[in-house]
Amino acid sequence: MQDGQARALLRAMFDAAVAAADPAKVVPGRLPAPPKGRTVVVGAGKASAAMARAFEKAWPRPLTGLVVTRYGHAVPCERIEIVEAAHPVPDAAGERAAARMIETVRGLSADDLVVALVSGGASSLLSLPAPGLTLDDKRAVNKALLASGASISEMNCVRKHLSAVKGGRLAAAAHPARVETLLISDVPGDDPAVIGSGPTLPDPTRRADARAILARHGIDPGTRVLAVLDAGEETPKPGDPRLARARAQMLATPQGSLLAAAEVAHAAGVTPLILGDAIEGESREVARVMAGIAFQVRRYGQPAPAPCALISGGETTVTVRGKGRGGRNVEFLLALALALRGDPRVFAAAGDTDGVDGAEEIAGALVAPDTLARAKALGIDPAARLADNDGHSFFEALGDRIVTGPTLTNVNDFRALLVLPG
Amino acid sequence: MQDGQARALLRAMFDAAVAAADPAKVVPGRLPAPPKGRTVVVGAGKASAAMARAFEKAWPRPLTGLVVTRYGHAVPCERIEIVEAAHPVPDAAGERAAARMIETVRGLSADDLVVALVSGGASSLLSLPAPGLTLDDKRAVNKALLASGASISEMNCVRKHLSAVKGGRLAAAAHPARVETLLISDVPGDDPAVIGSGPTLPDPTRRADARAILARHGIDPGTRVLAVLDAGEETPKPGDPRLARARAQMLATPQGSLLAAAEVAHAAGVTPLILGDAIEGESREVARVMAGIAFQVRRYGQPAPAPCALISGGETTVTVRGKGRGGRNVEFLLALALALRGDPRVFAAAGDTDGVDGAEEIAGALVAPDTLARAKALGIDPAARLADNDGHSFFEALGDRIVTGPTLTNVNDFRALLVLPG
Repeated sequence: MQDGQARALLRAMFDAAVAAADPAKVVPGRLPAPPKGRTVVVGAGKASAAMARAFEKAWPRPLTGLVVTRYGHAVPCERIEIVEAAHPVPDAAGERAAARMIETVRGLSADDLVVALVSGGASSLLSLPAPGLTLDDKRAVNKALLASGASISEMNCVRKHLSAVKGGRLAAAAHPARVETLLISDVPGDDPAVIGSGPTLPDPTRRADARAILARHGIDPGTRVLAVLDAGEETPKPGDPRLARARAQMLATPQGSLLAAAEVAHAAGVTPLILGDAIEGESREVARVMAGIAFQVRRYGQPAPAPCALISGGETTVTVRGKGRGGRNVEFLLALALALRGDPRVFAAAGDTDGVDGAEEIAGALVAPDTLARAKALGIDPAARLADNDGHSFFEALGDRIVTGPTLTNVNDFRALLVLPG
Repeated sequence: MQDGQARALLRAMFDAAVAAADPAKVVPGRLPAPPKGRTVVVGAGKASAAMARAFEKAWPRPLTGLVVTRYGHAVPCERIEIVEAAHPVPDAAGERAAARMIETVRGLSADDLVVALVSGGASSLLSLPAPGLTLDDKRAVNKALLASGASISEMNCVRKHLSAVKGGRLAAAAHPARVETLLISDVPGDDPAVIGSGPTLPDPTRRADARAILARHGIDPGTRVLAVLDAGEETPKPGDPRLARARAQMLATPQGSLLAAAEVAHAAGVTPLILGDAIEGESREVARVMAGIAFQVRRYGQPAPAPCALISGGETTVTVRGKGRGGRNVEFLLALALALRGDPRVFAAAGDTDGVDGAEEIAGALVAPDTLARAKALGIDPAARLADNDGHSFFEALGDRIVTGPTLTNVNDFRALLVLPG
């Protein structure tokens, strides 16, 4: 395989991963049974506007709806109203949308259908404080959680118990209507009750769990929040009769996207090895481990002989120490290039499936055997760029960025190392 | 498989990894052809005293010899003199031993045989400053390199060019005698010229490489060292006629030990997956990646179905921030237990094959599904212990340490996650 073919294969794998989660492709085949009465579409998340457009195009009946997405992620819809709000720290636009959504579904009858289009980001975008709280109370807790190292499951547990819409409360408000939730997952384990803090699904967590999580991370949320966590209304639990007609379908998952990429590799005669759909860890250290596995393939043909692709997903983290233009995928790739030390038979690609790695509309980048040599020729010091968390500048200078524009979906990160024989 | 069986299997895998590198087992089958003349044994390294004992037991001819090992790693020999010296920062005992070793091999004839027993640690233990340098000069550079994050290959390149014994200089001194080197590897790639800074093998690196490494890591070594790196005598290069009769045999490697552990797993009906014999990275982050791979086995049977063992070697690193009793293997295991969150079907073991993880004579430890629960019952906070780099105390309290005593060999770390079905 030539260099150009290796790069093209990795790019095709990334594109397949994104396509497998494209709302336009996955929504039409998964429509719920039509209701006797009205159809009301609600939803929230980075992918949810695109899901709304796909849904209204495919739905053969009248419908109305309101969906909230991240600023810049709106797409034109004809029948469903799309509202934009802030992510990852909620704002008043998200609060107004959540209040309107609750109002919209209240008073529906048993003949009516609520379709909830939920994807990653919904936790922040759909933010209605529980009675007794302000949006600022929630924002403060949210910021403290984001800085604490709490897991997404932990964050969402707390969020549910401070919310008037999350943790099944939106579905409870829609009772006695039927509620069908269509989901695109960006969380480890793909638990429907965790994605977007599960506004339409029963919540197995309790107020006491939320209190324990705050205590574990040393967060003092203030007296109003503590009062709600002590004596507020519990979220609807599994078995709650108000949610007896709530169902969920998973339209796309990180694993589904990795499988799609694996198929592309397989079709090219490359053995795909999926190492994990939820790999976590500091980006640059994850890169060193992946380089170590690639070296094992090179030297010993373990855990599989070359040509093979080491594929993984999930969300690594970057402890920011520098001032560069970075994202967790380009950080991973820059550290990987250093760890591979110009190995002549290893290529790699990584990117965020939402098309935005970090703060810029650059999805990710490619690493080739000559990455370090080309950087040197340009007078660029890769180690210094990594120390400055400056991955985007590095791969921009080399012309090795992957730019897709916003993909309007999100199944988290995609990473692949392509190890060739010889 | 019951809990006890899982623990016993992991322990048997670790023991097999150590046994595969035991000098008493690997030396006797690899004796060089006897010489017409004298046999002189030299050597240095953590495993080298045990190699010397095995060699003199098996060697059917007269011999004399001098071998230097780490304080506490000596074993009684009858014919070969064993000297102890400091590691990882060299001391005067190592310097005297190196000087005597050079003297011992000088003046041998073409009929004589020098057997060099080299293993990890030899770089520090065999430390004779190049003309114009003091041991303090070398110690200062050594300390700066250890703190700089330089790789073992980089460190050894610099050491070779500041030494009167490393980088083939011992073999050059032995010319015209035949030189047979028996090696136990603890370095990624198992390059004989890198293990113990290759005292008896040609050195492909140059003075300019050493200067570049110091510059890259921002180390100012002082004027005397710079003078030697500018104008000192080069190490013998491949093709140097003085080393034409120098040969090397690899007796044990990290990969050999992982394969031995893999066989034990296979015999127990567990699929072994060797992920790398040279995995590097911050210990706790490597643990998160390994946990992520174990979750993939659990959920999807990828990259292999359970029961399987995820086996790896190499040397992770710990950035010490706490004040606890730690080592890189127990740090890995403590972080792993947290990342696994009590998964009921994953067990793990990790340990240093030299029997000393960190500063204490504890090789490593075991993790079981109930590790976190048992810690909680004892009032121990695993996250706090990890923050304090206190892995040894943690596993001591749980009674889950692996204690072997000094194994008198070293093929680096051993790690295995055992993922059971169900």
